[in-house]
Amino acid sequence: MGVIRLAVDAMGGDYAPGEIVAGAVQGARDLDLSLLLVGDPGAIQERLSDLQTEGLEFEIVPSQDVIRMEEHPAQAVRTRPGASINVACRLVLDGHADGVLSMGHTGAGMIAALLNFGRIPGVERPAALVPFLGLRQDLYLLDAGANTEVRPQHLLQFAHMGSAYAEYAAQIPHPRLALLSNGAESNKGNKIGQETYTLLAASNLNFVGNIEGHTLLSSDVNLVIADGFVGNIILKLAEGIAASLLDQAQEVVGKLPEASGELVTNHLDLLREKNNYAHYGASTLLGVQHPIFIGHGRSKATAVRNGMATAKRMIAGGVIDRIRQALAN
Amino acid sequence: MGVIRLAVDAMGGDYAPGEIVAGAVQGARDLDLSLLLVGDPGAIQERLSDLQTEGLEFEIVPSQDVIRMEEHPAQAVRTRPGASINVACRLVLDGHADGVLSMGHTGAGMIAALLNFGRIPGVERPAALVPFLGLRQDLYLLDAGANTEVRPQHLLQFAHMGSAYAEYAAQIPHPRLALLSNGAESNKGNKIGQETYTLLAASNLNFVGNIEGHTLLSSDVNLVIADGFVGNIILKLAEGIAASLLDQAQEVVGKLPEASGELVTNHLDLLREKNNYAHYGASTLLGVQHPIFIGHGRSKATAVRNGMATAKRMIAGGVIDRIRQALAN
Repeated sequence: MGVIRLAVDAMGGDYAPGEIVAGAVQGARDLDLSLLLVGDPGAIQERLSDLQTEGLEFEIVPSQDVIRMEEHPAQAVRTRPGASINVACRLVLDGHADGVLSMGHTGAGMIAALLNFGRIPGVERPAALVPFLGLRQDLYLLDAGANTEVRPQHLLQFAHMGSAYAEYAAQIPHPRLALLSNGAESNKGNKIGQETYTLLAASNLNFVGNIEGHTLLSSDVNLVIADGFVGNIILKLAEGIAASLLDQAQEVVGKLPEASGELVTNHLDLLREKNNYAHYGASTLLGVQHPIFIGHGRSKATAVRNGMATAKRMIAGGVIDRIRQALAN
Repeated sequence: MGVIRLAVDAMGGDYAPGEIVAGAVQGARDLDLSLLLVGDPGAIQERLSDLQTEGLEFEIVPSQDVIRMEEHPAQAVRTRPGASINVACRLVLDGHADGVLSMGHTGAGMIAALLNFGRIPGVERPAALVPFLGLRQDLYLLDAGANTEVRPQHLLQFAHMGSAYAEYAAQIPHPRLALLSNGAESNKGNKIGQETYTLLAASNLNFVGNIEGHTLLSSDVNLVIADGFVGNIILKLAEGIAASLLDQAQEVVGKLPEASGELVTNHLDLLREKNNYAHYGASTLLGVQHPIFIGHGRSKATAVRNGMATAKRMIAGGVIDRIRQALAN
């Protein structure tokens, strides 16, 4: 595989295009990626003039407009082919890029991927994969919010897709997957969970059983499967708890001598950074025919850069081919 | 109302009867409660001989055996009337006690309450209410795990029951309640959530809308409604994240001078204590005709004592009558 070419939606996100372009340039340099910046050429060019771009392989691809956070995504994606997310997707379809990164409207990104790329044969429901914050390395969650209603068969497909990701993008050999539930035993969970347990246990995946919330972080599980309703709730809750608890921990600093207080503050800042969902850059929509990565609307340059690292790992790992193979069997 | 009389299942829990009896005696003294200790009189008496009991109003009520953690609860509760949890419930039915506290098998406690006490007219599904750890004061969760499958009407009943609890046991005037969801807007959530939103919005409750995980702790919501599957998962997850994050915060101590390290350790220990689910003592099963409080199997004396405080507040607040009124309207 040659240099990976990433189409970045420069117009999507609360801090677009400034932070997006800055992060994209940084990522292209750090990660040795070729960059297609999609958006308003004038605005992109203006931002680029402040940045070091010598030696970078990049191109600006004009788009007409952007789908904003408050818009109804399905209609906007269908009716505005010139929106930056649609232009970025077409760059992949036309063979100019290997994948898309957007910090814009999450729903619009997913719908654009579905409509432009289509689903991998056998996939009924694409699903969003994210690292489960920085609380534990090598722990991924699927589905992080794409599907609020699922059937057991969908969850089985999530498990196949997520296992392919964990093995070939995150490079975890024989990734261990678990089903999020309210009890460890196979008869725990809601009806859908119990049926899914049976399907997973009969699969060729490395299924280690149900996992509960309090053991998730201390476990050796690499992939936790949940529907997108629960997955989205727990991801955001983890973020909220981390923020709240680190603030409470920070209160001790007032009682410490200055030097110690500074060490504690730095340490807690590091934990804040690790556990900041935005920091992770991007979730990956698994189940569509080409790679797409969608980040938090509030992403700044670092998140964009980190999203590009995620994109590079998945593209380089050939995860989509692996998913095709897994679901063809 | 005279002195509140609490029947404590002295045999239930990993540390029974030793820690249970010790906690019960401490609670009876601190909270000015009258105590009925249910269990093996010899074992209870032996433990009591190590404790200060002068001036306490207490009685030992013999039971034949205990339903153990590994047993199938429904059958055990039905077939063993002499089990400590059944004896404790009958003390309430017979007018000798105002409520039951048990740190034994959670399912057995719930089933014993259902079978012995019965449901409040109009309640289809009793549900478990817990404080949402110590991460925020005055935040309660319902259902914490009693019902893995619910209908919107059940969630509406949970909201009525939980609001009565928040107002009359936790003494929060006009408690604000929210529905846990994957988005703030009314059209977010799964189908059951969306239908529940409509029911709650049309109710006379102080419903403030959907709430997401990352804003839950920073919100001014007092009661969050979820089905028992999701509720149980998030409660345990919160516990796991708090433990993991506090351990990670603790790592800074190695870099600090001894005195500062000690201050930080003490502060983090305090947060650990606040965020330890076991510390809270007991969840309350709302929807049955008499008060019952069920704690973690791993509860020690402090949790038992704190569970008694919870019990006192609910009994003194006349919450069950308030629930009856709310559901009769």
